[in-house]
Order: sequence, then C-alpha cells, then structure tokens
Amino acid sequence: MLIGKVVGNVWATRKDESLNGLKFLIIQQIDYYLDKEFPTFVAIDTIGAGIGETVLVSKGSSARKIIGKSDVPIDASVIGIIDTIEVEKAFKER
Amino acid sequence: MLIGKVVGNVWATRKDESLNGLKFLIIQQIDYYLDKEFPTFVAIDTIGAGIGETVLVSKGSSARKIIGKSDVPIDASVIGIIDTIEVEKAFKER
Amino acid sequence: MLIGKVVGNVWATRKDESLNGLKFLIIQQIDYYLDKEFPTFVAIDTIGAGIGETVLVSKGSSARKIIGKSDVPIDASVIGIIDTIEVEKAFKER
Amino acid sequence: MLIGKVVGNVWATRKDESLNGLKFLIIQQIDYYLDKEFPTFVAIDTIGAGIGETVLVSKGSSARKIIGKSDVPIDASVIGIIDTIEVEKAFKER
Amino acid sequence: MLIGKVVGNVWATRKDESLNGLKFLIIQQIDYYLDKEFPTFVAIDTIGAGIGETVLVSKGSSARKIIGKSDVPIDASVIGIIDTIEVEKAFKER
Repeated sequence: MLIGKVVGNVWATRKDESLNGLKFLIIQQIDYYLDKEFPTFVAIDTIGAGIGETVLVSKGSSARKIIGKSDVPIDASVIGIIDTIEVEKAFKER
Repeated sequence: MLIGKVVGNVWATRKDESLNGLKFLIIQQIDYYLDKEFPTFVAIDTIGAGIGETVLVSKGSSARKIIGKSDVPIDASVIGIIDTIEVEKAFKER
Repeated sequence: MLIGKVVGNVWATRKDESLNGLKFLIIQQIDYYLDKEFPTFVAIDTIGAGIGETVLVSKGSSARKIIGKSDVPIDASVIGIIDTIEVEKAFKER
Repeated sequence: MLIGKVVGNVWATRKDESLNGLKFLIIQQIDYYLDKEFPTFVAIDTIGAGIGETVLVSKGSSARKIIGKSDVPIDASVIGIIDTIEVEKAFKER
Repeated sequence: MLIGKVVGNVWATRKDESLNGLKFLIIQQIDYYLDKEFPTFVAIDTIGAGIGETVLVSKGSSARKIIGKSDVPIDASVIGIIDTIEVEKAFKER
C-alpha cells in the first residue's frame, strides 16, 4: 500500500454506470524516508477522507475489494485514514 | 486511476478476435501537481471520449471490468470523461 | 496497452510445460510523443508478428486472456499488429 | 518479490472493516546489487516481523493470498523474515 | 516477461507455510538493447535455474500459475531457462 495526502477532487458526469455515486479523490504519494516528489493519482474513497488528510491507499485488483463489488473498473482505493506514523530515522544512515 | 489527455488513435486489423469493434485511444497521463511529461499508453474507450478530452483511466485487471467481458486481453480503459478537477495548490509548499 | 516494436526472439528449451509451442518475442516500447528510450521486455505472440513490426501489447493478468488459457504463467502478450497511428502533435505545446 | 527493511509502523482507526486486527509496517526496498535508495511502502505482516528486520515482500493480488482472505483490500504482504542472502558480486563486473 | 540473470539466493525459515520447499532466487533484469543497470528482485524457481544462468521471469498474478497453486503468495517466477537470444541491433539507429 502507499501513504498519500488528499490534494483534490475529480468529477466526471459521463462515466461507466457502475461508478455512479462514488467519490474520486486526487492523491499525492508521500514518503517519510525519501525526500522526493511523487506523481498524483486518483482513488475512490468510501471511508470519508477529506482534502489535506493522510491516507492509506491500495492499488490494482485489491482496490476492488474495498466495496465488495469485484466488477467495478477501479484500480485504487482509500482503505484507511492514518492517525499515527512511526518511522525509525536511524536506518537512514546505514 | 490516472488523469490523461486523449492525443491520438490506433488501428490494428490483425488482432485478437475478442477486440473487434473496440476503439483504441492514445493517452498521455497528465499531473496537475508535478510539472513532468509522462509516456503515452493505449486504452480502450466505450464512453465516447475524443481527441483533446481529459479522461479518467483505469489500468490492470480492473480495466477488463468496464465492458463486462472479463476474458478480453485489455489492460487499460477509459472509465470517465472529466468535467471538473479541483486541486489544492497550498499543499505544494509543505 | 503499450505500442512496441518487435526487435528480437527468445528460445528456452527448459521451461514450464504449459509454455510449449508458444513464440516469445523481444519488444521495445515506443512512444510517439516522448523522445525517450524504453527498456525491452518479452511477450508471447499468437497473432503472427515478425521482427520490425509495430505491435499493441497487453500486460499483467490480461495477457493470459489472449489464448483463452488463464492458467499459463505469461504476463505480456501481443494483441494486435498496428496498421495506423494518428497522434495530435498540437497538444505537445501546451 | 522484493527484499526490504522494516523501518516503521502505521496506525489507522478509520479503515475498511476487513482490515481490523492487521498490522501495517512501513518497509523500504533494499538492493544488494544496486547502490540506490528506494521509496518506502506499506505492507501487512502476519509473520511477526519487527523494526529493523529484513523481510521478503509480495505485491499485487498475490499479497491477498497470505491470509487466505482473497476479499481483503491489501496489495503488499510480508511473506517471510530473511535469515541469509547470498549474492554473487562477480556478476557486477560484466 | 523479463530477461534476467540469476545473481543469488535467499533463505527465510520464518515464512508463510504455503512457501515451504520453494527455492528463492535473486535475479537482476538485463536488457540487450538498453545499457542500463536494473534493480534486483526475488523469484521462485521450479525449473532448476542456477547462479549465472539467464532466465525468463513472469511477474504479478501470472507468477502463481507456474506451480498450479493459485493460493500461494508469490509475485515472480522463473518460467524458463534461456538457450538463445536474437536481437536486431539495426533498430537501435532509428
């Protein structure tokens, strides 16, 4: 899974019917180890995440398991809203 | 999912039979956060997207769910034509 | 899917039995938008592509749908031999 | 699969119910051949790995096989805690 | 699929039970076209490949098809040991 920050929203009226009612968030992957800027991507959200929140995202076929509908054409889902992240900086200086 | 712009079309007469009648679009991923140029890829379109339109694309096994035929050898599909994108630029200056 | 050029062949006598009789092509991804050199990869071909031809390739689990045998360990397949590619250069100067 | 080092933990109270009780580790991919720093990612752990341990990680749909529940939205799992790694440095000077 | 060279071995006593008895090889992707050094990864081997051999590797869910056990958490498998590679250098100077 990836850690990301919710940075925006996307709306599409003309879309596959199975996507109706789903919320699409723009997310940027963030890394607490590597000082690097990652591309953004779009994920659906059924947990209730909002702009600025740090989320846990699952990609690929696993993303379809979040809503129990394995026949919906989505490849990224928010699976949790992160409370705490603990990272051991000591390992950076191997 | 990815946000992309439709930049072209591809035609292939000699192809797997299950692909007959499908429309193949060349799409370039675009990112409203990162000023970076991404490679293009090919996706099928059943929503009706045209050249120059901004689309939402699903990749991998999820792409096969768009047309309900899970036994078609495609790995990218247009799942929506985007109306509005809202991105919070404030997060760029972390 | 990806657009690629067939640049070679691979032979392996000692291999998984389910692969017997399959043709393995070395393919380099090409991009009509981005002047970048991509790595090569190997895909099976059941359409009849030859060296130098431009092909459409599907990757991941979708690649197994080309030959109807979903229990063959392949992750890339040629799904078509491309006749025509039309790309709108105008979008390059955004 | 990837070789990685466990560098942290993540907690998320608000998450998909099927994830309750699972442990989420932050892992950085390491490479004994290439002196390169890789991004981190999050994987579930059911084997008992701790901070600083070197682990074997499976990604994608295969990650869901670790816990026998193919309907859980995870895309990375620790599948083993590594005892020994043997790498032939001779091949570096091809 | 990818072409790779076997450069090492990995052992993990504490691992998912379904992995018992499987052999884990460290493999570096090689490219006969692009003079680039790729990261290594780990794949299972049921074909009998040894250190220094050039192999064909399948990744993702397809990797689980090699051993007929679709419920084993692996995402890369050696599917063949390569005898011959034929690459048309002429295409390099497009």
